[in-house]
Amino acid sequence: MRFDGRRQDELRPFKVTLHPNKYAEGSVLIEAGDTKVLCTASVEERVPPFLKGQGKGWVTAEYAMLPRATQSRNQRESIKGKPAGRTMEIQRLIGRALRSVIDLEALGERTLTIDCDVLQADGGTRTTSVTGGFLALALAIHKLSGTVTFARYPITDYLASVSVGVVEEQAVIDLNYEEDSKAKVDMNVVMTGAGSFVELQGTGEDSPFTRSELESMLALAETGIRRLVDWQKNTLGEAGSAIGGGLA
Amino acid sequence: MRFDGRRQDELRPFKVTLHPNKYAEGSVLIEAGDTKVLCTASVEERVPPFLKGQGKGWVTAEYAMLPRATQSRNQRESIKGKPAGRTMEIQRLIGRALRSVIDLEALGERTLTIDCDVLQADGGTRTTSVTGGFLALALAIHKLSGTVTFARYPITDYLASVSVGVVEEQAVIDLNYEEDSKAKVDMNVVMTGAGSFVELQGTGEDSPFTRSELESMLALAETGIRRLVDWQKNTLGEAGSAIGGGLA
Amino acid sequence: MRFDGRRQDELRPFKVTLHPNKYAEGSVLIEAGDTKVLCTASVEERVPPFLKGQGKGWVTAEYAMLPRATQSRNQRESIKGKPAGRTMEIQRLIGRALRSVIDLEALGERTLTIDCDVLQADGGTRTTSVTGGFLALALAIHKLSGTVTFARYPITDYLASVSVGVVEEQAVIDLNYEEDSKAKVDMNVVMTGAGSFVELQGTGEDSPFTRSELESMLALAETGIRRLVDWQKNTLGEAGSAIGGGLA
Amino acid sequence: MRFDGRRQDELRPFKVTLHPNKYAEGSVLIEAGDTKVLCTASVEERVPPFLKGQGKGWVTAEYAMLPRATQSRNQRESIKGKPAGRTMEIQRLIGRALRSVIDLEALGERTLTIDCDVLQADGGTRTTSVTGGFLALALAIHKLSGTVTFARYPITDYLASVSVGVVEEQAVIDLNYEEDSKAKVDMNVVMTGAGSFVELQGTGEDSPFTRSELESMLALAETGIRRLVDWQKNTLGEAGSAIGGGLA
Amino acid sequence: MRFDGRRQDELRPFKVTLHPNKYAEGSVLIEAGDTKVLCTASVEERVPPFLKGQGKGWVTAEYAMLPRATQSRNQRESIKGKPAGRTMEIQRLIGRALRSVIDLEALGERTLTIDCDVLQADGGTRTTSVTGGFLALALAIHKLSGTVTFARYPITDYLASVSVGVVEEQAVIDLNYEEDSKAKVDMNVVMTGAGSFVELQGTGEDSPFTRSELESMLALAETGIRRLVDWQKNTLGEAGSAIGGGLA
Amino acid sequence: MRFDGRRQDELRPFKVTLHPNKYAEGSVLIEAGDTKVLCTASVEERVPPFLKGQGKGWVTAEYAMLPRATQSRNQRESIKGKPAGRTMEIQRLIGRALRSVIDLEALGERTLTIDCDVLQADGGTRTTSVTGGFLALALAIHKLSGTVTFARYPITDYLASVSVGVVEEQAVIDLNYEEDSKAKVDMNVVMTGAGSFVELQGTGEDSPFTRSELESMLALAETGIRRLVDWQKNTLGEAGSAIGGGLA
Repeated sequence: MRFDGRRQDELRPFKVTLHPNKYAEGSVLIEAGDTKVLCTASVEERVPPFLKGQGKGWVTAEYAMLPRATQSRNQRESIKGKPAGRTMEIQRLIGRALRSVIDLEALGERTLTIDCDVLQADGGTRTTSVTGGFLALALAIHKLSGTVTFARYPITDYLASVSVGVVEEQAVIDLNYEEDSKAKVDMNVVMTGAGSFVELQGTGEDSPFTRSELESMLALAETGIRRLVDWQKNTLGEAGSAIGGGLA
Repeated sequence: MRFDGRRQDELRPFKVTLHPNKYAEGSVLIEAGDTKVLCTASVEERVPPFLKGQGKGWVTAEYAMLPRATQSRNQRESIKGKPAGRTMEIQRLIGRALRSVIDLEALGERTLTIDCDVLQADGGTRTTSVTGGFLALALAIHKLSGTVTFARYPITDYLASVSVGVVEEQAVIDLNYEEDSKAKVDMNVVMTGAGSFVELQGTGEDSPFTRSELESMLALAETGIRRLVDWQKNTLGEAGSAIGGGLA
Repeated sequence: MRFDGRRQDELRPFKVTLHPNKYAEGSVLIEAGDTKVLCTASVEERVPPFLKGQGKGWVTAEYAMLPRATQSRNQRESIKGKPAGRTMEIQRLIGRALRSVIDLEALGERTLTIDCDVLQADGGTRTTSVTGGFLALALAIHKLSGTVTFARYPITDYLASVSVGVVEEQAVIDLNYEEDSKAKVDMNVVMTGAGSFVELQGTGEDSPFTRSELESMLALAETGIRRLVDWQKNTLGEAGSAIGGGLA
Repeated sequence: MRFDGRRQDELRPFKVTLHPNKYAEGSVLIEAGDTKVLCTASVEERVPPFLKGQGKGWVTAEYAMLPRATQSRNQRESIKGKPAGRTMEIQRLIGRALRSVIDLEALGERTLTIDCDVLQADGGTRTTSVTGGFLALALAIHKLSGTVTFARYPITDYLASVSVGVVEEQAVIDLNYEEDSKAKVDMNVVMTGAGSFVELQGTGEDSPFTRSELESMLALAETGIRRLVDWQKNTLGEAGSAIGGGLA
Repeated sequence: MRFDGRRQDELRPFKVTLHPNKYAEGSVLIEAGDTKVLCTASVEERVPPFLKGQGKGWVTAEYAMLPRATQSRNQRESIKGKPAGRTMEIQRLIGRALRSVIDLEALGERTLTIDCDVLQADGGTRTTSVTGGFLALALAIHKLSGTVTFARYPITDYLASVSVGVVEEQAVIDLNYEEDSKAKVDMNVVMTGAGSFVELQGTGEDSPFTRSELESMLALAETGIRRLVDWQKNTLGEAGSAIGGGLA
Repeated sequence: MRFDGRRQDELRPFKVTLHPNKYAEGSVLIEAGDTKVLCTASVEERVPPFLKGQGKGWVTAEYAMLPRATQSRNQRESIKGKPAGRTMEIQRLIGRALRSVIDLEALGERTLTIDCDVLQADGGTRTTSVTGGFLALALAIHKLSGTVTFARYPITDYLASVSVGVVEEQAVIDLNYEEDSKAKVDMNVVMTGAGSFVELQGTGEDSPFTRSELESMLALAETGIRRLVDWQKNTLGEAGSAIGGGLA
């Protein structure tokens, strides 16, 4: 039994509000327990300099926490003068993960920026950002497909993420802040709808982990992500019907 | 008749969600039409260096917009490396305004930071931040009063703010973005519950304004702010009962 | 009677040195009591990116204080790495105010940058910068008119600024530093030669102000600015003769 | 057969120069094929603010590449004004990894900073930095043990790192730049001498990877790191004899 | 004959205004031809961290140009975010030069900051800043000596500076901007009243210079600085009488 | 006799490793006693904006020290957010010095960037950087001459640099750190193979120096640089044969 009464393999309650933002091409407010992330997808009809003239698009992500998303207030990064190392690490992960299921040639010369702003943080903000960021991206591309004719549908598969860890000698899934601060291992896993790995980031700073602990965590992650992808399919409904379809 | 059908002196629908944040000592999500601002008040038991050892507290504010709060996406200020001039101007205004109804000696050696994060912007974000920031501040001090014994109640009066302007030769209140971009004058007014002025900032960049236009705008602002203060009293209820009471 | 013996409605002695800088297209050293501001106007035959190709010009301002312009030395903003919030707020005000009397279409695709560098500060640096900045701008455009044929004269009216406030329960004009630090209200007013308002910025941080105090301050400002505009007309002489004339 | 003729499980030639720096408490120049990293360990008798007064030490790492460490020259990060996201991500990884085999209480209130400066980069700079950084750290602590009496020897185990990946459908170890740019998966693994995992970072940006590919890569990494640890033991000789010994 | 009709060894007209700033402990406006530098000396009763508790004082300098001090406008360094390399090089030179004639032990634990702000630049701004900065420093220390009892007078000698160069095959002194831009060598010399060298900085970027050209330039510099020191003695009068006196 | 037993006019042992970097067009590791500098020359087929379209090339230098190049560790400049004043001063000197022997028209529209990274510092890092930077530059241009047909050979002469100073009343050459910290004068001299001066930078911060001390230092420098140039000729051999030859 875990601190909050969940089973070892039990995700926190997931909740989504679609279209919370009237300007963004796609947006969701995603909640995993007390973690709340506002994800917006913005479309711009240009690409970064390194991609100009190649007929390819780009997907990138930015991540930030509101100053009081956490138990004690953090200084704003605009005042520090630059994003912290942790922030950059997280947004690079989200961007890489989302691009793994996007066919950039099919997308054409446009950029989608996924902003993941954490309104409240209770563990798992990066994995929730991937899962919610995928939904915002999918909504924006579905909307785009109403005005743009894609040669192929640019989203090749579903994508979701969850954290796993070892807390008090037991492998558990979807750690909240309290568990996270007590975990000897913390691993973030991103997988596709087809069940392949996109990112695997495990850290045993306080205590290294064994191969068998790794196997237990991977098993939990695989099951959990399968459940998250099913939930994403229900959430998107019609807006997700072309995903992975290839021909648009 | 205005673009959105409102009368000249008609405020947009105001809506508030109390305590949207589980960590902050006080928090509200305030909406004025399509403008949505998340206001949190954070208490720290220390004061800035320039106030140390004087037995006085401090109230300060920070303001920011999420990148996609607006019609087209804005670059994050953490990436630009510093808050824009407009941001600093607005947060200095919010801080000054809130301090005008706080008895810093009564507050004691602690700092309240009011974060106003604009989730969606449709005009009037700075005035809505003042009005909502006051509510978050009042909730936090009410909560503090449960554990701290104040010599006097630190909030001396209510405080609210509204914009007024001249659009198509007509003075109007609480401009949305569309009106704002067409206004020849744009004035932000902050007033206390007692009806005194705290801030008056009027700008006629595109076209100077006459004394009589000024009088019309002031009249609208006075009526509108009276209405906002009444609404604040209802919103806070018991939590606002000691405001202006002097003795705690 | 005020600290320095002035009457309630009495401006400090104004003094101007024309053309103190041999390179700038227009320049003045303006003194209001012990406040000294060097204002230069620089012409560049290009416009900022957001105006390119629109056939319009631009007027912008920058403001700074020398480190020892004040009683105790301030750190340079180049060392802090960015202009302070106060600096940005002031230079945005000066720029907006100057643009209000410039016909940007008539000016053509060129930029005038007005630099206001405070050599010595004794209150009223921002209002003195507006009043002196207007003179430098007028000198530069007068000089330009010798080589460029304008369809219309680009300056539509005179422009001056003064501060007013309430000190020891009395409304006064043109506050020096000592008065400023004791004022319960501080208001900066910018008006055109025709008597319209361009900027009105009143702050009652320490103590809100009443409608009747506002009226007294506005009356003082209107009279004072009328006097400043007369003085500007004398100062510019022939160089100001086309201002507001419309046809060049 | 790989591009450079190596077998699938063959490491590049490893080479080390001990004590290349006459000032640092510990230093090595480590070479893995054409990748060359200068690692220095610096001891300071103080800890960061967040650790003050807790009787614990700290180990941190910094990573940088010389501008021409790569095929085309990169701009210096001191000129960009901040370390890039990639740099921060790497140095956070190196620091976390090294701390996993340090007993911070045993170390006492001192900080060891491991600088990993890449003189030439041909793939695997972060893993080579971990492996070489450990050697520099071990030399410095061995030197310290000559003057400081530790309650327990502060290094609890050996630590080494290697990259693995999937190139042309085949799992391979210790990728050089050419392989790295063609790999569909790139995974960095850090393990202790006892064979536990400290960090696992796998990314399949261009193409997700299967569970079976993951197993192949893990097997290669385990074997390779075992060989690296043996090589470290030979390299350190007497200087490593107390590692993991517990009692000093 | 030179461009402006001066002889080879003729300085430009020097002019000084004493005490142009009412707040600074010492200040001069120094003019060398059309080069105008405002020098202020500010006293603070503290020393930088690296000198704390050593019973010694510190003298440092800062240098800046107003944006329109030059023929075309320069961007402010506060907007660029940092002082340019040229600025730092110059202010380090001024500081070192001034410290060479200050007895830091005699000064006691206080800091004098000499700000050299160039109002108008026509060549020789750094040498004029040294010569004028010395005057401001001397005035401030003379003023200090009215309230502080120094064990020894802290100024050990006079100090002045001038530029020399080779223009059209001829060695000349005190180059203006036009000469400077045509010079094949440019050398800045700082000397004490006693005739010793403090700084010698010669650069032959466009064309190296011979030993005999060096001798000619040194001879010009020695004569010119002797004249400048005489002029400084007249300028300071009584305020300079204790310089080099040793006993206070 | 000096601290390390050298004669007054004796250089430290010079050593060079050619081509230590496999990517750079030219590179050397130069050692002067315990001072070690890695110099790389990078060729880019473009010029900075201020030179575009003029048919001329550019040579520039960057200088940095690894954090533990010195006795105690220094903070990285990428973390401070900008190069220190000392760094900028040094790299500006290196760049100017190298350009003095380059025929920029002959070089054509390309940029050579000379990076001087100090691996270990024991005095004389800037002069060693000039001497070694010239070698890297010469190697890169020699390599270029294999693929590019120059109208004239772009290197007009050899170039070397050495420090001289006065230590314990005696003029000495090529000071190491210990001498440098005890020197009353420190002068860096850069000269061409033909014996002309390119840079002369002498500083007598702690104690001004006389004309006769200057003469002694210049004599030492002239002899020492002649020796260094001979050594450079031997080092470059065939690769230096076209230097100063004019026709390519």
